[in-house]
Amino acid sequence: MPVLDVMVIGAGFAGLSAARALVDAGKDVAVVEARDRVGGRTLNVEVPGGIVEAGGQWVGPGQDRVLGLIAELGLSTYPTHDSGLHLAELGGRTTRYSGRIPKLNPVVLADIAQAQLRLDRAARRVPLEAPWAAPGAATLDAQTFATWLGRHVRTRSGRAFFQLVTEAVWCADPAELSALWAQFYIHSGGGLDSLINTTGGAQQDRVVGGTQGAAQALAAGLGDRVRLGTPVTELEWTAERVRAGDLEARRAIIALPPPAVARIGFSPALPADRAQLLQRMPMGWTIKVNVGYDEPFWRTEGMSGQANSDRRALGTVFDGGPPDGAPAVLVGFLEARHAQAAARMAPKERRDLVLADLTAYFGPRAAEPAFYFEQNWAEEEYTRGCYGAFATPATLTRFGPALRAPVGPLHWAGTETATRWAGYIDGAIESGRRAAEEVLR
Amino acid sequence: MPVLDVMVIGAGFAGLSAARALVDAGKDVAVVEARDRVGGRTLNVEVPGGIVEAGGQWVGPGQDRVLGLIAELGLSTYPTHDSGLHLAELGGRTTRYSGRIPKLNPVVLADIAQAQLRLDRAARRVPLEAPWAAPGAATLDAQTFATWLGRHVRTRSGRAFFQLVTEAVWCADPAELSALWAQFYIHSGGGLDSLINTTGGAQQDRVVGGTQGAAQALAAGLGDRVRLGTPVTELEWTAERVRAGDLEARRAIIALPPPAVARIGFSPALPADRAQLLQRMPMGWTIKVNVGYDEPFWRTEGMSGQANSDRRALGTVFDGGPPDGAPAVLVGFLEARHAQAAARMAPKERRDLVLADLTAYFGPRAAEPAFYFEQNWAEEEYTRGCYGAFATPATLTRFGPALRAPVGPLHWAGTETATRWAGYIDGAIESGRRAAEEVLR
Repeated sequence: MPVLDVMVIGAGFAGLSAARALVDAGKDVAVVEARDRVGGRTLNVEVPGGIVEAGGQWVGPGQDRVLGLIAELGLSTYPTHDSGLHLAELGGRTTRYSGRIPKLNPVVLADIAQAQLRLDRAARRVPLEAPWAAPGAATLDAQTFATWLGRHVRTRSGRAFFQLVTEAVWCADPAELSALWAQFYIHSGGGLDSLINTTGGAQQDRVVGGTQGAAQALAAGLGDRVRLGTPVTELEWTAERVRAGDLEARRAIIALPPPAVARIGFSPALPADRAQLLQRMPMGWTIKVNVGYDEPFWRTEGMSGQANSDRRALGTVFDGGPPDGAPAVLVGFLEARHAQAAARMAPKERRDLVLADLTAYFGPRAAEPAFYFEQNWAEEEYTRGCYGAFATPATLTRFGPALRAPVGPLHWAGTETATRWAGYIDGAIESGRRAAEEVLR
Repeated sequence: MPVLDVMVIGAGFAGLSAARALVDAGKDVAVVEARDRVGGRTLNVEVPGGIVEAGGQWVGPGQDRVLGLIAELGLSTYPTHDSGLHLAELGGRTTRYSGRIPKLNPVVLADIAQAQLRLDRAARRVPLEAPWAAPGAATLDAQTFATWLGRHVRTRSGRAFFQLVTEAVWCADPAELSALWAQFYIHSGGGLDSLINTTGGAQQDRVVGGTQGAAQALAAGLGDRVRLGTPVTELEWTAERVRAGDLEARRAIIALPPPAVARIGFSPALPADRAQLLQRMPMGWTIKVNVGYDEPFWRTEGMSGQANSDRRALGTVFDGGPPDGAPAVLVGFLEARHAQAAARMAPKERRDLVLADLTAYFGPRAAEPAFYFEQNWAEEEYTRGCYGAFATPATLTRFGPALRAPVGPLHWAGTETATRWAGYIDGAIESGRRAAEEVLR
């Protein structure tokens, strides 16, 4: 085998974007992918009448890289269904509302607004290239996001709101995240509203044919440079060479989530800084459920299909169908503790739980689905959780500088290494292109 | 190859103790060990005039399992050198003192005493078998130990004291640990004094010939059942069988630190609960340095060889020699952030740093060592840190029940799974015996 210029490990958006940039620059590249498919944490699933998406499925304003890529590939987007009344259950109160703000007790609304203002203001002060250099970084990173929220949110319903938001955005408990990581991530995605909103936010648009289609199109352009079904479990490296299986290259770009990097046996071992960083970036956990119906009955009943609850397992629901409602889909998330509890159930019991919650939100027609598909990303051997990894307390300030620093010929990509939209497809693309630039320099 | 009863992975004290218990019960056992030696995080190193210990080196009262094992194996112990004056640098003040309590400002002493009282009292309320069931567990686990200390320690020097203690006990920053894990660990080791004291505590005694000798003796008793140089990177399992390399067994006991378990490719993948737990138990980090001299000059100068400092990299030092002082050794620890900073230095620069700190403690004769040996456990491919793993916030309450729960034919050992002396050799032995009992039942 000839020696390649670059071996890219992982054919998600990060790895494919890196490979594309390198090929455009005239480099010899191979992309090795453990699974028998490309797309990483995006996955189209065929269902009667179309597809649903078992992984990352939204794009939104400010995500210039993924929107640019979609345009470049000749793909198009459509708006997430966002009209009609939304449902919110918070602090024992159920409301139906339009627009962005649920009808809540004014004291609670003021509490939430003030905490969000503080959070966004603090987040803007976190430098995206170096969160560990934020003002007060040591103090912020020494506390959990739960501790930060406990100090800045005064009402019970306000706390329930931020618990729900944390579970929806990170698929983790506020007690797990570093407060500094939470603020970095919020800044990285353009503010809390930008992360949680549908129209105007990260859930605004969908890709026609599913987001995985963009990865498949990228891979198609790379041709037989992409090798599926090729897990890298051992990797040897020197200053000039990287070897994995029968491949040899001058450089490697490792485009995997942190716990998947930790699965590789590096020889020689990674420097302690990088090895210990990998021990301190766990993945969130969600079970994503797509439930199909004969028609989008909630739309005709004036509902948007969006629901949130601080007391139900299926805490977040969206209309998961295209504008014409074919297929008609409600897409829901069992997040963090709810994923964990639901994972212990028998499949039938879990399905009953999901349908009961959907019925509570949208009435008895929700109990009679045409199809039901669930995806537990934490049980995927090559992902181990989702949406992404987060940093536990003191990780950014102690180990953050090791996140992107190359180790000899090894370069690091993956959405967790991004500065903008870390944790999103857009961040994955940024990270792949940045790693490619490092290699080209 | 015949099908074994049990395959034990890892030949540290946990794995060897499990194998010994199983062999005693008449089972067919193999122990597979990645390294070309047994002993895990214990390691004897030959130096002029004897050995030093690069890993776990102390035993103390209350560690009944390891003390019993030592006696059983016909080994003996000697007391750690603990007479003479100790040195402490805290809050800008240097003191020489005998006994346990440094000469500090009475306000600081009262502050430390009160915080320690609260800590020990809270720790005693944490059930060792189920720390997640402690009173107030959710609140404790939602905060870092740094947050807990910030609320209970009032003086600057008091905070410096607990920072130093945390670095010495866990090789981590208080900001990294869950407050619940810290309290569990303190209870597990019989209280804070028990963890930090020399005489009367976990540093009281040494094993003649080094602690690794006990592992070697255990391994000798197991004969050719122990297979060195056999890393397990892939493990297939069903309800009835476990296969790794050319070995097949009815059960497996996996006796590795959590990040080493995460290195194994399980097929089928581990349940999400267990996989995510492994992502949330990072290792501490210390570089342990043994510095030898022609004679134990500090002893003749009336010093114990014990020193602690909140402003030096080598924050903790002990006399590392036997009673007769041959070899004469000072053993020091670059802990947590200090290990990290020192790891970035060139070897000569790091050695100069260590010798400068020893000279500051013990005078100019410390600058002229007869030998110098350092061990960076975080760069050991099959350990990845030390002394042990800890739980980040929310890990015990969310994932704790998965720590010891068997997964089909897979049983979990390793000191991190112990209830008494978790993180110590004693805990490793407990964990191995407990896993063996599970298999035998």
